Amino acid sequence: MNNKQEKKTTVEDAKIKIKKRSENFSQWYLDVIAAGKLADYSPVRGCMVIMPNGYSVWENIQRVLDKMFKDTGHKNAYFPIFIPESFLKKEAEHVKGFSPELAVVNYAGGKKLEEKLVVRPTSETIIYDSYAKWIQSWRDLPVLINQWGNVVRWEMKTKPFLRTTEFLWQEGHTAHATYEEAEKEALQMLNVYQKFVEEYLALSVVIGRKSESEKFAGALDTYTLESLMQDKKALQCGTSHNLGQNFAKAFDISFLDQEGNEEYVWQTSWGVSTRLIGALIMTHGDDKGVVMPPRISPLHLVFVPIWKNKEEKKKNTKEAQRLAESLPEEVRSHIDDRDIRPGWRYYEWERRGTPLRIEIGPNDVEKNQSVLVRRDTGEKITVPNKDFSRKVVQMLEIIQKNLFERAKKMQEENTHTVETWEDFCELIRTKGGFIKAPWCGLDDCEAKIKEETKATIRCIPFDESSAKKSCCIYCGKQARDVALFAQAY
Amino acid sequence: MNNKQEKKTTVEDAKIKIKKRSENFSQWYLDVIAAGKLADYSPVRGCMVIMPNGYSVWENIQRVLDKMFKDTGHKNAYFPIFIPESFLKKEAEHVKGFSPELAVVNYAGGKKLEEKLVVRPTSETIIYDSYAKWIQSWRDLPVLINQWGNVVRWEMKTKPFLRTTEFLWQEGHTAHATYEEAEKEALQMLNVYQKFVEEYLALSVVIGRKSESEKFAGALDTYTLESLMQDKKALQCGTSHNLGQNFAKAFDISFLDQEGNEEYVWQTSWGVSTRLIGALIMTHGDDKGVVMPPRISPLHLVFVPIWKNKEEKKKNTKEAQRLAESLPEEVRSHIDDRDIRPGWRYYEWERRGTPLRIEIGPNDVEKNQSVLVRRDTGEKITVPNKDFSRKVVQMLEIIQKNLFERAKKMQEENTHTVETWEDFCELIRTKGGFIKAPWCGLDDCEAKIKEETKATIRCIPFDESSAKKSCCIYCGKQARDVALFAQAY
Repeated sequence: MNNKQEKKTTVEDAKIKIKKRSENFSQWYLDVIAAGKLADYSPVRGCMVIMPNGYSVWENIQRVLDKMFKDTGHKNAYFPIFIPESFLKKEAEHVKGFSPELAVVNYAGGKKLEEKLVVRPTSETIIYDSYAKWIQSWRDLPVLINQWGNVVRWEMKTKPFLRTTEFLWQEGHTAHATYEEAEKEALQMLNVYQKFVEEYLALSVVIGRKSESEKFAGALDTYTLESLMQDKKALQCGTSHNLGQNFAKAFDISFLDQEGNEEYVWQTSWGVSTRLIGALIMTHGDDKGVVMPPRISPLHLVFVPIWKNKEEKKKNTKEAQRLAESLPEEVRSHIDDRDIRPGWRYYEWERRGTPLRIEIGPNDVEKNQSVLVRRDTGEKITVPNKDFSRKVVQMLEIIQKNLFERAKKMQEENTHTVETWEDFCELIRTKGGFIKAPWCGLDDCEAKIKEETKATIRCIPFDESSAKKSCCIYCGKQARDVALFAQAY
Repeated sequence: MNNKQEKKTTVEDAKIKIKKRSENFSQWYLDVIAAGKLADYSPVRGCMVIMPNGYSVWENIQRVLDKMFKDTGHKNAYFPIFIPESFLKKEAEHVKGFSPELAVVNYAGGKKLEEKLVVRPTSETIIYDSYAKWIQSWRDLPVLINQWGNVVRWEMKTKPFLRTTEFLWQEGHTAHATYEEAEKEALQMLNVYQKFVEEYLALSVVIGRKSESEKFAGALDTYTLESLMQDKKALQCGTSHNLGQNFAKAFDISFLDQEGNEEYVWQTSWGVSTRLIGALIMTHGDDKGVVMPPRISPLHLVFVPIWKNKEEKKKNTKEAQRLAESLPEEVRSHIDDRDIRPGWRYYEWERRGTPLRIEIGPNDVEKNQSVLVRRDTGEKITVPNKDFSRKVVQMLEIIQKNLFERAKKMQEENTHTVETWEDFCELIRTKGGFIKAPWCGLDDCEAKIKEETKATIRCIPFDESSAKKSCCIYCGKQARDVALFAQAY
């Protein structure tokens, strides 16, 4: 056996110190994940282990989104993880986009396979093979299906939650009778995502359309949610695609319309992933660790009874139990009565990002009061116990709201509008953030801007569609759009 | 484009006729799945598509079991789908058991991999690699983690839900300080499973211990739930393993106990899968299709308004809406007001196994009553609308109970006890079912019985532990156990 001292993990080591954001944001991010026991490294290149504390966030994300999907008429189903290689090749753009990232099974059950199987990087092709069988007439439309599952993309550079070889996600796949219906669906799901990330994850996002070069491989149009992280880099939080008839034609998904004509269906697909947990960390975290928005936090509050002797421990823990029982059922609480000094317990729950800590010391019990400590601001509030339950519920709402407003303010303060290439370069060099700038609409300018500044077009924001279009910052020709640029994850 | 007539699927075709159980049970099973739109074939060998109607059953299974797991202290986490080949080899029995069924990735991201990756057939090895890092001291124990996910086993003969190349399941993995604790955990989870399958899926099961030859590859002891299907063949519904220290030693999962000694942990693992849906179908289904136990059914009841003209349609559908709104929130109902004649609508919901159908015709509305039709018995009950909600809730409970009692009775009637080899062979030949028989405990006798009769030891039932042990039915020597034999899936 190894010596236990030598078995210390990255996670355990990281417990000791979290790098400051200002010193090294990238290391801070990794430290926060380890300190919060959100994820751990795995022996498989680029794959992470999602630890219970991190998975609990994903479960909360799933629970809320799943209800939102069902409320908009979608049902869940499950399709195979393996895709015959030939399927991927049916849609030319699609295979071009995903080929470099595929993991391939060519040996199974002790034999070489006749046709290689790809581990799904996304499921359009395997799902649409079924749709071609299921859809016969206009009566079968719309098909509104979602799948929760894992996908694999062999990424070169990986980072927990943000970009991992395997990740968990949901992918919606719908089929409609008309372009208009599909477009409406794609935008509806973008709005569902926006509502979810704003109201639950407390992220501030810009929604818009992707440029040709950034859209999903095989889509007509990709709509996206883009958010600015604390290091002023952008993160794509989710996408919704109007696939047009591209896949319908490749997979022969046709239907007889009400007039008896055979038509191809119009399709959408849309997804968000465990990457959202990365967005949450990089938006709300501080130098002490992750900060969980209450509505998505594994726990809402933790009681930390404080004592000097056994009798006090018993008494104050009992008081914590009494207060816990007074809370509404939906409030997730925990009593930490471990025999560790209070400071260490505070420290651990701060690192886990629990929105509220309730300190209950001997004086508090005597005075029939508790001390609420906010994770987002550090503020301490003494509350008479008769108001405890009401105050906790109120405080959780205040924290949720504060996190969103803080994120929104950060985004606003770091969104700039420029008209010249000089100003654009200057901003990228000095401040980063979102930069709104007129663009001619040509791939070539977009590529050169990326090459020179590492900034990409995150989207053409919807709310800029009526903005004044002057000259393209790069080529100087008439601008077609106002595009949102940023260096991105 | 193909002609739509030629695009008819297996599912669509099966709509026309379900084979009778008495004629061909195996075909009946496939027909029922197609007719109930539970699953469809996929282009990937041995993989199925779980359609929304089938997936909804799995979601209900997940929801209930997940709560039961959490109520017994378990948390969910997620580990990589890929396992380095070398990991599987660390536990000798384990790799022997799973090697023939592995799917192997040896090419990813455009390159040949240095070490082959196996798509998880079960996750002991990849999970225990993390446990070795996470567990340092007795303070870290017990570790109680569950994972919901997909696994892949390259099976030779596959059948929807019962045995598929990829299937969905949950796998619990725990680590404890002592053998006794691990044993208690393994038995606790077996009891959780038993409670679940009896109370929700309405299955009747025998619980017991697997023989050496049938236990999980790498376990000390495997506990199992065995159920008898309508064709008198047994189906293993779930297993819980006491892994002892086998994996702890292979993966060096040790801890410092309270006295400062370094010890290996004691472990368990336990799982149930989408196979449970197959058990449900083969236990309750009849010649009309699947019969869903109310507590796990996608829908509890469907309203079928009946009309002769538009006015009646409007009136009777409105009455259905009124009745639907009067139901408690937890009752899942649907109004089928499609312009298809009632008979076709009845037919479809019967095939989906919906526990109650509510017929609302013009006469019923006039008399302020509804007709409840039970899926399990076909019985029609006229109910005054003032009692509707109460009666529906009551009737769902009655159906749930009836299905369980019917299953229990079937099992009891088909469980036989024999003392001689002659009687054993006769029973296998004529009746099938569960056969309790004394057994010497030797692998050799077990293997020969299997060879000659295709019957295997399903388990050594717990409730037979104190039974009279006479002579082994095969070798005639002193019996060690009373074993439960059956031909099995």
